[in-house]
Amino acid sequence: MSKNDDMTGITLEGRRKFLNTAAIGGLAGVSASVGLIGCNKGDKAAAPAAAGAATGDHSGAAPHIAPGQLDDYYGLWSGGHSGEMRVLGLPSGREIRRVPVFNHDALTGWGITNESKKILGADASGKVPYITGDTHHVHASYADGTYDGKYAWVNDKLHSRLARIRLDTFETDKITEIPNVQGFHGIFPDKRDPVDPKINHTTRVFCGSEFSIPLPNDGKDAADGSKYHSLFTCVDAETMEVRWQVLIDGNCDLVATSYDGKLAATNQYNTEMGVRYEEMMSAEKDACLFFNIERIEAAVKAGRTKTYGASKVPVVDGTKAANTDPKTALTAYVPVPKNPHGVNASPDGKYFICAGKLSPTASVIDLSLVHKYFAGELKTTQETVVAEPELGLGPLHTAFDGRGNAFTTLFLDSQVVKWNVEASIKAAKDKNVKYVVDRIDVHYQPGHLNASMSETREADGKWLGVGCKFSKDRYLPAGPLHPENEQLIDISGEKMLLVADHPVWPEPHDFIIVRRDKIKTRQIYNLEDFPNAVKDATQSRVERKGNKVTVYLASMAPAFSLREFTVKLGDEVTIILTNLDKVEDLTHGFGLPKYDINFIVNPQETKSVTFKANKPGVFWAYCTHFCHALHLEMRARMIVEK
Amino acid sequence: MSKNDDMTGITLEGRRKFLNTAAIGGLAGVSASVGLIGCNKGDKAAAPAAAGAATGDHSGAAPHIAPGQLDDYYGLWSGGHSGEMRVLGLPSGREIRRVPVFNHDALTGWGITNESKKILGADASGKVPYITGDTHHVHASYADGTYDGKYAWVNDKLHSRLARIRLDTFETDKITEIPNVQGFHGIFPDKRDPVDPKINHTTRVFCGSEFSIPLPNDGKDAADGSKYHSLFTCVDAETMEVRWQVLIDGNCDLVATSYDGKLAATNQYNTEMGVRYEEMMSAEKDACLFFNIERIEAAVKAGRTKTYGASKVPVVDGTKAANTDPKTALTAYVPVPKNPHGVNASPDGKYFICAGKLSPTASVIDLSLVHKYFAGELKTTQETVVAEPELGLGPLHTAFDGRGNAFTTLFLDSQVVKWNVEASIKAAKDKNVKYVVDRIDVHYQPGHLNASMSETREADGKWLGVGCKFSKDRYLPAGPLHPENEQLIDISGEKMLLVADHPVWPEPHDFIIVRRDKIKTRQIYNLEDFPNAVKDATQSRVERKGNKVTVYLASMAPAFSLREFTVKLGDEVTIILTNLDKVEDLTHGFGLPKYDINFIVNPQETKSVTFKANKPGVFWAYCTHFCHALHLEMRARMIVEK
Repeated sequence: MSKNDDMTGITLEGRRKFLNTAAIGGLAGVSASVGLIGCNKGDKAAAPAAAGAATGDHSGAAPHIAPGQLDDYYGLWSGGHSGEMRVLGLPSGREIRRVPVFNHDALTGWGITNESKKILGADASGKVPYITGDTHHVHASYADGTYDGKYAWVNDKLHSRLARIRLDTFETDKITEIPNVQGFHGIFPDKRDPVDPKINHTTRVFCGSEFSIPLPNDGKDAADGSKYHSLFTCVDAETMEVRWQVLIDGNCDLVATSYDGKLAATNQYNTEMGVRYEEMMSAEKDACLFFNIERIEAAVKAGRTKTYGASKVPVVDGTKAANTDPKTALTAYVPVPKNPHGVNASPDGKYFICAGKLSPTASVIDLSLVHKYFAGELKTTQETVVAEPELGLGPLHTAFDGRGNAFTTLFLDSQVVKWNVEASIKAAKDKNVKYVVDRIDVHYQPGHLNASMSETREADGKWLGVGCKFSKDRYLPAGPLHPENEQLIDISGEKMLLVADHPVWPEPHDFIIVRRDKIKTRQIYNLEDFPNAVKDATQSRVERKGNKVTVYLASMAPAFSLREFTVKLGDEVTIILTNLDKVEDLTHGFGLPKYDINFIVNPQETKSVTFKANKPGVFWAYCTHFCHALHLEMRARMIVEK
Repeated sequence: MSKNDDMTGITLEGRRKFLNTAAIGGLAGVSASVGLIGCNKGDKAAAPAAAGAATGDHSGAAPHIAPGQLDDYYGLWSGGHSGEMRVLGLPSGREIRRVPVFNHDALTGWGITNESKKILGADASGKVPYITGDTHHVHASYADGTYDGKYAWVNDKLHSRLARIRLDTFETDKITEIPNVQGFHGIFPDKRDPVDPKINHTTRVFCGSEFSIPLPNDGKDAADGSKYHSLFTCVDAETMEVRWQVLIDGNCDLVATSYDGKLAATNQYNTEMGVRYEEMMSAEKDACLFFNIERIEAAVKAGRTKTYGASKVPVVDGTKAANTDPKTALTAYVPVPKNPHGVNASPDGKYFICAGKLSPTASVIDLSLVHKYFAGELKTTQETVVAEPELGLGPLHTAFDGRGNAFTTLFLDSQVVKWNVEASIKAAKDKNVKYVVDRIDVHYQPGHLNASMSETREADGKWLGVGCKFSKDRYLPAGPLHPENEQLIDISGEKMLLVADHPVWPEPHDFIIVRRDKIKTRQIYNLEDFPNAVKDATQSRVERKGNKVTVYLASMAPAFSLREFTVKLGDEVTIILTNLDKVEDLTHGFGLPKYDINFIVNPQETKSVTFKANKPGVFWAYCTHFCHALHLEMRARMIVEK
């Protein structure tokens, strides 16, 4: 620790070299105060001066939603290493629902019921492979260039899984583990078919893996960096099966897709293929890597594929060496300044914006030029970059207002900068053109941001959410673990107005803001959707086959259909519970003391659990979800006989 | 299902008999519409008329907390069958922190780290007994009749555990499983010592168990109702060991304690000792059961105790038959109308209010008369009840404003009623005295409520939180599972004003509202508190003893102290990670792909995990908690050699 101010193995002097000249002042100032986070309450006076002209904290009016009034937008929020997804109402910022995805949830019984265990990939013994997850990006399905309210997808970076959430019930219905990758970071659904123009809705989800690993990852070749690779993956939106993968140079980070369905791209922060920290930042340029979906699928169809390890997924070769002729290339590596983090599609369908992170710039890539490159009409991929506007320190992600403006988070500056995309392109030729429209301080260190409907053709420029990674002094202190701070900014006018701080349990990475009419939910289930439903209380019974006992149970406020049931010590007991109540919001719970069983059944829903009766005695199952004035009395006795 | 409108086994006609005359109209009207929950959006016109004069939905101004401003109060909220506790800021209603308690938490590593597993009661193999829990009641420690900011306790009804949360770090530090009980429902800490007046702070926590079980519960006697018993339990506030238990007639529900430290009480809804639903409501009167703490502890000291099963906890006899002489009685059974739910101590120290549930009344019990009863100066326990004010349908819980007024939730009426306690006592003798001050509709079906500082001598009558069990149409629809609705009411004036709807993940049962100056948190940890801390990055190393490998690791943004470490397939690996960063809010995470490991380390904190290296290959551990502009690059390679 003597030579360095941290453990990167890089001296402060060395780290400065990673940054363009414009950035040095800001970064050096901050990094000297240990880490790159900004000022704390007590030391505001000593805060390093941010590059660019900050407009200060000009808070606007509160977006008050009166009691009983509804919000205008759904916010679908990633839950980070909580493993869940969240549903917020906006502009109020109120959390309406948590959606258990990769985590276990004691309330809903996610990871406890047989049905959820199956989705989580349980083995024959009922053991699920993981109880942890790290959700990063939430994106929803499209039709005609806007949300169709059918699905959302969210990825697990930790164990490289993609989950799908039904937007009619806000429940996870499928999870797919992607083979031969680690650090599965970015996802984006396609917006229409690359070949068939009639298919103008989502049919694929693209997945980028961040960490390179030896292929196959079997314990050999760990020391040989040349054996390390990343794969870009396509998952079928309906079946959730992996369609194909692409072997690439470098790694993947975020993912974006074009409105014409023909292009997907991922930003790459480690084209160096470094396996050590220091190596990952050695090159001046990294890339925004484009995939020509139609050509890739033709190559898969033609069998120009290989497989790795036990996986049967066909893998095409997207490395630079194998794609030197643009006219047949599956991929195009567009150089962008070093270690970019974030690539976003503008709602007019024209551009991808790839942000700089270690450069104070964003790269504006013209998709019509990418098509020209693949048509052999350009000499280099560099020519697709039509502007590199200078935005400030640590640009990460970009959202849009549908009126030609982009909003980019500046992690180091703790700001959001509003800039005009067409103006930035003009400025590339004429230095007198101004493209920065406004700046606003956020609190603090923003990562992702998104604007209302920003990822669709219906971007409406009303609200901007900003996911600030540090909240520090913005909330009552609650111990060493701080909430994140999701700030809400009114972007309806020329100037941005900060209107609310919303604390959230760490750690949202990304989110989308969906107009409320886009989502149509079911408020009760359909009994017929559950083949094992106990459709009438008269069907309640206990059935025994050898030492396997099935208890058929129904709930209707304020009672379970069986007042008691008896099993024998050592039995394998399956309890099937149908909630026969039909009233909206009339959910029941089933908690079984000492047997570690708890789950809920929503109106007309059926769930089941299986366990070994390994403790003798009387166990009072009870309704855990308040249902009725006599809820407390709603119980069923399980008697386990010796 | 033919004869009944639900599965209680009781006809509608029969159920009406359970209720006093005043309640019939309301209940019959609601129960006819399936279940006892109120009207839905579409059928407001058809809603049954509530007893009493509703004031309607007169919403007040929003309690706006501007960006960057702090709330005035902490709300400590039970999380119900989510198994957690929550920390809200009030009046904004913002959730500042989740506190994992009985649940597993993929973010913090609760249930994953060795330290949390130990608190959760893991066996030698590292397996914890439960992953579910059902938190009900949150109460905090006292000194001088108000909160001292030291601890909060929350109970698990599902597996009968009591947990303690440190209020300096908002983390669970001890969990105790209570022997020989099921359905552990109510808790309350004592407020001073019953004998030594110098000890004017919390030293005991009282716990009420709701379900009667055969003692011991070993699989015999299940059919013999006379063998079923409930126990009332005292846990030491510091050691968290069980001090003693009391065998009682009937069961326990909520718990209250007196400001003089001498009395604890629990309301009993099943004095019938019914083991079937129908039996639990047969008696016209149930009880509020008082415990004479000083006498109980003297009996324990004198060895007048027995034990049950494997438990060594001394149990004294608090049944009616063993306590017929008030002058030596350990207990006093005060009759109150049937199936009460809720007992609360008034901040002036004079009364316990025991609400009626199936009676439209509350019982006001004068504690000075309870003392007189125990002194042999009263003939019956009934004489301690000084008023039974009629409040409305389904009265449950009561809070106070410190100005002599009480606020009681009316579950069936979906209202809160404000009433004056002294006036209700006068009205017991003079029917012309009015005691109801105001009523307000809440949305919908309120359970617990609490007012700011209501459970202390410093009750300040500013805010009232109301935990509504149904939210129905109050939020954007998010599928069949609805949030609960925690409503906020301004009680500073004569009339109550509804100011905000706050949705919460089910299902808060209870909460307290604590003035913010009462809680003093630590914002970073102390390195010295962790005996296994890796105090300097130079101590980072890998140590092997046979097939046990310990990896000593430190984090400092943006790097781990070891860039890689190698173990062998089959090794038992322990990773100890210390976060050497000292900056507030600079938390790091440690996620290990495919090994199901994730946890965070807050500034200056140390945690460890132990797992079997059962998969060969390269595994990129990465920082899961955003920490730095180069957070994404913060990794460490684990190589598992075959």
